[in-house]
Amino acid sequence: MSAPANSQWLDEVLWDEQGLIPAIAQDAKTGEVLMFAWMNREALALTAETGHAVYWSRSRGRLWHKGEESGHTQRVLELRVDCDQDVVLLKIEQVGGIACHTGRRSCFFNRLETSGWQDVEPVLKDPKEIYK
Amino acid sequence: MSAPANSQWLDEVLWDEQGLIPAIAQDAKTGEVLMFAWMNREALALTAETGHAVYWSRSRGRLWHKGEESGHTQRVLELRVDCDQDVVLLKIEQVGGIACHTGRRSCFFNRLETSGWQDVEPVLKDPKEIYK
Repeated sequence: MSAPANSQWLDEVLWDEQGLIPAIAQDAKTGEVLMFAWMNREALALTAETGHAVYWSRSRGRLWHKGEESGHTQRVLELRVDCDQDVVLLKIEQVGGIACHTGRRSCFFNRLETSGWQDVEPVLKDPKEIYK
Repeated sequence: MSAPANSQWLDEVLWDEQGLIPAIAQDAKTGEVLMFAWMNREALALTAETGHAVYWSRSRGRLWHKGEESGHTQRVLELRVDCDQDVVLLKIEQVGGIACHTGRRSCFFNRLETSGWQDVEPVLKDPKEIYK
């Protein structure tokens, strides 16, 4: 990924009233949508500078270097912004193959069936083993 | 897509303080992320019932049957919700091949380069021809 030298590209992003922007992380190779999170300006700047996904944790109220505890970092190959400049898309390589804190590859493991939401993806690693 | 007969699955969704949930629309075949929008409870219920994407337009403050003006409706093949139950993912077939109001296939056509955000996707149809 190529990050610009100056910060004009960050000024062009439309931050919401909390100074955040939604971020979608997609497997660069398979196209699988792995997770959804939020970024503030610093998180997006750090993501572009370091080439690794940094989000803003709304629950913890601080920067969240994805993988800081689990080791499941995300190498960012490409950054995109949408037509309204208010959503970013990250094309990533998921280190360790697990994006979700439940130990599944993707956070989107619940599919709507006639019986309701059904978990249709396997747990690849016990979260107790991930967060020791 | 299979919609449940009762509405318990809608109660299991975590709506934000505005009663909305982020929705990601992804091409079911290619995996391409086509757009991002918001849904309220009624929009999500209608999407499941009709098999066509219905969003909540925050700017217009009303339901937005995707394609109502452009004809570029979205046939929903699968609905997923994430681990926190606060983001939905739609696997869709994009009727007309154009999801973006700019006439491009996807809304995510701006890629970050060293020179800043660069438009890297072709306009497939002039918006003046789409919204007549």
